[in-house]
Amino acid sequence: MSNRFWFIGGRDGPWRVTGNRLIVGEGLADAERLDIRNTDTAPALSPTAWMLQGFTSNLRYATTPEVTSLRAIQPPLGRPEATRAALIPLKKSAVWWDMPQDERRAIFEETSHHTEIGLAYLPAVARRLHHCRDIGEPFDFLTWFEFAPEHEAAFDALLAQLRATREWTFVEREAEIRLTRE
Amino acid sequence: MSNRFWFIGGRDGPWRVTGNRLIVGEGLADAERLDIRNTDTAPALSPTAWMLQGFTSNLRYATTPEVTSLRAIQPPLGRPEATRAALIPLKKSAVWWDMPQDERRAIFEETSHHTEIGLAYLPAVARRLHHCRDIGEPFDFLTWFEFAPEHEAAFDALLAQLRATREWTFVEREAEIRLTRE
Repeated sequence: MSNRFWFIGGRDGPWRVTGNRLIVGEGLADAERLDIRNTDTAPALSPTAWMLQGFTSNLRYATTPEVTSLRAIQPPLGRPEATRAALIPLKKSAVWWDMPQDERRAIFEETSHHTEIGLAYLPAVARRLHHCRDIGEPFDFLTWFEFAPEHEAAFDALLAQLRATREWTFVEREAEIRLTRE
Repeated sequence: MSNRFWFIGGRDGPWRVTGNRLIVGEGLADAERLDIRNTDTAPALSPTAWMLQGFTSNLRYATTPEVTSLRAIQPPLGRPEATRAALIPLKKSAVWWDMPQDERRAIFEETSHHTEIGLAYLPAVARRLHHCRDIGEPFDFLTWFEFAPEHEAAFDALLAQLRATREWTFVEREAEIRLTRE
């Protein structure tokens, strides 16, 4: 199975775009629907508003107890009741990437509690992280979230908590696409 | 500038292959010469023995004091006297990649002293690490080393030291190509 995922904003796909919000930096063009493909090479498609790609990879910060907690309660994608989703493309600054691993880890978790915050919203919110900084894409990460309609307020709170952290002071571009499966 | 590098084993290029050694797992086909290209997309070339690609990226394990030491004494590539080189493609096991960050870090440095060993051979040996696990390549890393002929014995010792570490018990494929610039 390929580790490469393509997020295609256009007129097709099972997800209807219900919101396109610019958080910081340049936004994304409006699209009616979103399609997601899991293939090594770019899907051949008629013109689309945008196409973003990323790959799943190994964990970069989580420690043994954090991984144990995450694996115990994180839900899978594709749950029938999870008809709401969000795609959050995000890019961090050059200052962030130039820091040694221990400095990035300290800001990520000991200061900003990224994993701890996320754990508080499990198993309501399912998540898959895609990396794309190293492959010439406009963003560093594409995070995909799925949840049931009754958990949308909790998801909003999760985003608000994360965006108030020190880690987020290193975010120089962020968009937020909200979706409903239909 | 692109962060993508292509290592092309064939009949052309400034580096003459002087050795092709299989360390563990499947080896690489023999090639006469090596060419290196730094472009985002695959170079169009006549048939070659093999073509491997990787990207430079942020540091994954090094801490602040280690980065400070490395940056103070690591030499650049392309020194006129550094007419010897080595390309070491390497793949680690699924067990390695499935470990949390702190477990990998502990084996990498606290147990195996990877950075500490490398530092002892600076500034004689220049090095550039390329990642390729996430882009569907047969290896996880391609490491490129350059040194002067009088430092070849030291370089041999560096490799022997690293290969005797616990970290290397997770290596399931490794090849070693030795080269001379001419």
